[in-house]
Amino acid sequence: MNRRFLKSLQKIYPADRLLTRDVELLPYESDALTAFSAKPGAVVLPVNEDEIIDTVRLCHALAVPFVARGSGTSLSGGSLPISDGLTIGLNRLNRIKNIDPEQRIAVVEPGVINLRITEAAQPYGLYYAPDPSSQSICTIGGNIAFNSGGAHCLKYGMTSNHVLGMKVVLADGTVTQFGSESVEGVGIGPDLVGFFVGSEGLFGIALEITVRLLPQPELYRTVLAAYDDLGRAGDAVSMVVASGLLPGAMEIMDRLAIKAAEASVKAGYPAAEALLIVELEGEALQVNAEFEQLRRIIDESGAFEVRVAESEEERMRIWKGRKGAFSAVGRLSPDYVVQDGVVPRSRLGEALVEISALKEKYQLDVANVFHAGDGNLHPLILYDGREAGALEKAEALAGEILALCINLGGSITGEHGIGMEKRDYLPAMFSEEEIDIMAALRLAIDPEEIANRGKMFPSGEAPALAQHGMHPLERAGVISRE
Amino acid sequence: MNRRFLKSLQKIYPADRLLTRDVELLPYESDALTAFSAKPGAVVLPVNEDEIIDTVRLCHALAVPFVARGSGTSLSGGSLPISDGLTIGLNRLNRIKNIDPEQRIAVVEPGVINLRITEAAQPYGLYYAPDPSSQSICTIGGNIAFNSGGAHCLKYGMTSNHVLGMKVVLADGTVTQFGSESVEGVGIGPDLVGFFVGSEGLFGIALEITVRLLPQPELYRTVLAAYDDLGRAGDAVSMVVASGLLPGAMEIMDRLAIKAAEASVKAGYPAAEALLIVELEGEALQVNAEFEQLRRIIDESGAFEVRVAESEEERMRIWKGRKGAFSAVGRLSPDYVVQDGVVPRSRLGEALVEISALKEKYQLDVANVFHAGDGNLHPLILYDGREAGALEKAEALAGEILALCINLGGSITGEHGIGMEKRDYLPAMFSEEEIDIMAALRLAIDPEEIANRGKMFPSGEAPALAQHGMHPLERAGVISRE
Repeated sequence: MNRRFLKSLQKIYPADRLLTRDVELLPYESDALTAFSAKPGAVVLPVNEDEIIDTVRLCHALAVPFVARGSGTSLSGGSLPISDGLTIGLNRLNRIKNIDPEQRIAVVEPGVINLRITEAAQPYGLYYAPDPSSQSICTIGGNIAFNSGGAHCLKYGMTSNHVLGMKVVLADGTVTQFGSESVEGVGIGPDLVGFFVGSEGLFGIALEITVRLLPQPELYRTVLAAYDDLGRAGDAVSMVVASGLLPGAMEIMDRLAIKAAEASVKAGYPAAEALLIVELEGEALQVNAEFEQLRRIIDESGAFEVRVAESEEERMRIWKGRKGAFSAVGRLSPDYVVQDGVVPRSRLGEALVEISALKEKYQLDVANVFHAGDGNLHPLILYDGREAGALEKAEALAGEILALCINLGGSITGEHGIGMEKRDYLPAMFSEEEIDIMAALRLAIDPEEIANRGKMFPSGEAPALAQHGMHPLERAGVISRE
Repeated sequence: MNRRFLKSLQKIYPADRLLTRDVELLPYESDALTAFSAKPGAVVLPVNEDEIIDTVRLCHALAVPFVARGSGTSLSGGSLPISDGLTIGLNRLNRIKNIDPEQRIAVVEPGVINLRITEAAQPYGLYYAPDPSSQSICTIGGNIAFNSGGAHCLKYGMTSNHVLGMKVVLADGTVTQFGSESVEGVGIGPDLVGFFVGSEGLFGIALEITVRLLPQPELYRTVLAAYDDLGRAGDAVSMVVASGLLPGAMEIMDRLAIKAAEASVKAGYPAAEALLIVELEGEALQVNAEFEQLRRIIDESGAFEVRVAESEEERMRIWKGRKGAFSAVGRLSPDYVVQDGVVPRSRLGEALVEISALKEKYQLDVANVFHAGDGNLHPLILYDGREAGALEKAEALAGEILALCINLGGSITGEHGIGMEKRDYLPAMFSEEEIDIMAALRLAIDPEEIANRGKMFPSGEAPALAQHGMHPLERAGVISRE
């Protein structure tokens, strides 16, 4: 690493927050996409926004590429280090600076864990809606970079629908405010908040974020339906959508995912080819009325068993199985690849049939866990990394699933982003013109392409070395895959 | 005008769709912001997207500035011609290309009138939510340029919340797609749809737009409450917001606006210092339950008369007065300036008291009509353009109202945009850094600044000549002011 750069970093950071030794760098070499790794030149751990700003300005002055990193739960390699570049770890910027129950907003630092916002808002009867499965560990800064979704984004939208304003430092060191801190101040000119949210760290770093809080639903009603056929569960989703009901969440797990969840968290799920979880939420009167309608639909959908959560405890048990399903799959297979694709909800049945055929073709097991209401598939392709060529076979199957999503009129990512993993698929999803525009906008903000260099655009630097297996921190249960 | 440019235009357009004579250009010299006018070099009236693309490429090749224009209802001068530039009139691209009731989307051309989308969706039980008061005349292309709102955007958000995808021609002639045609395909990378929506025509022209349709509410309940004090009506709004109710619309009119509406559309409003209209909408069961709660709040808010619409006819009559209030003010005064500002909803009462004081200071009448639920004020400042200095006095008062909005933590425009009218206020609302970023992004897309040159940025060309009075087309009732 550039010596002058390191010397300047030493002026900003004490030794215990400037990591350069191999053993210190190890935890930062991968993120939750374990197929890639790279060695950063250094990792810094700022504790306030001035340190971040000074660091970005230094990177800009010396053209050193950097990546901002929260908890490293990205499944697309979004927080993978840039080889010999700088990783800026934001976990220590974890203050909730303000909760305003009247305006229904929270002002937070980028390293705040998603679930902490809801916990802090709870005393006021409020919560933060987007709930990625990793919400107990992932940070709001990472959620912003990847416009994260979650099971309950069906009704309320992804992260971009919940960020009102941000203070940011751009890649050239400019510090500015996007959006507004009040609900009323939104809507003038191009939407720079929406432009930044989902930009995968390619424009800069969010320093302070104002998010919208929602009133806690008065009532939840949660139904678990078991099917002896995966397609039938998919059809049930189409029936619910067609009925006009808008549940808070609508999730499907297939036989293998159920088995994994059972082996791991013992949710007490029935043995079935597919489980459908539908959750209604809102005002008690309406939820109860909707529940009658939902019951009728589920009863007609061919489920062989229907359970209704009769207590908050039963509801939590249903969700525990679903939210733990990803990491549970590790119990069934030494290694797996998680895919993230989207198909139109009306073509869910077709997609599942095709994925079954691909399983046969590749002779690999695939566990399906997905946000069915959004058409967002998360197939987990199981393989054994110790067998020669197994990873390659799994990745070929993952690629075919993406091609299938595109052919059915969907997209190559629902919520995990492009990152390192899918940059080569970008031209399959966007036209040349559109990619050129994104690149031109990126260059307008970051002419040296120092912010998260090599991600999103296929023309970026060569990918980091491929490896296989779980990240060491994941094996230890510190990070989760969704 | 550049002769080579005109010759090339003649190759694209027949004589009846290429206007260059003074008498033909007259209707295009102003928009609904009548304080400014300018003479375009030519006006073209394309009938398909190929003609638009060829025209923009020609403008780019010869560096001729252009403005796209729908019905010219912009209240901020957004569709004001560029002096000696080209105006591209889009009203003839008015096809609704597809309504897909299953996906709940409509695909439309930019010149389609806002209300036509709802009319086309009605047979399927669907509608297009954003409803500017000018919705029977304004176009979806203009709504996109200015991220238009409307009375019912309180619950469902502005235009940007309802556009899923767009085919666009950028200022450099690039043709591309932003966003997706399906609800499921949204969310990858920076939000280019949000970036384009609200950009006031500075990046290019939308050629084809995919919008989201919503199911028609099962039930509306509309309440009209009369107050003998404007502040009390404002407080009632705060009470409704604090209760957690989310009405579809919440509007206030003051004494002068009521008088104007009565004189014009005879809505049968009670004589009062202020009228509050609150409309609940949604599923019957919930709306009826919410209505009980709303009644209690209104009864406690000090209204001296409360009316509930008992039929669709009564509901329509209540809205007719509100939606016609702007043009009705023309009956009370030879001239008026419409202001558009936003204050936090919790400071609505303060804002109204201050505006009253400003009326006294300037000795001018101000009629207030506003989207109270959003904190979006629309004071109409009445003056007589035949008196020397009257326009200047009205504009000074309008300026003080904007300063007030900023001081109270609001913004300088809720829905009319910056355009020509407010470009000098941009630095009051955005930091230097933020303006630089917007300018850099603009240059990345349009290096010669040919798209709607001179709008939004204070550094643009000198403003067009000031004039006063109503636009000739407005006097004839062809265009409306909101």
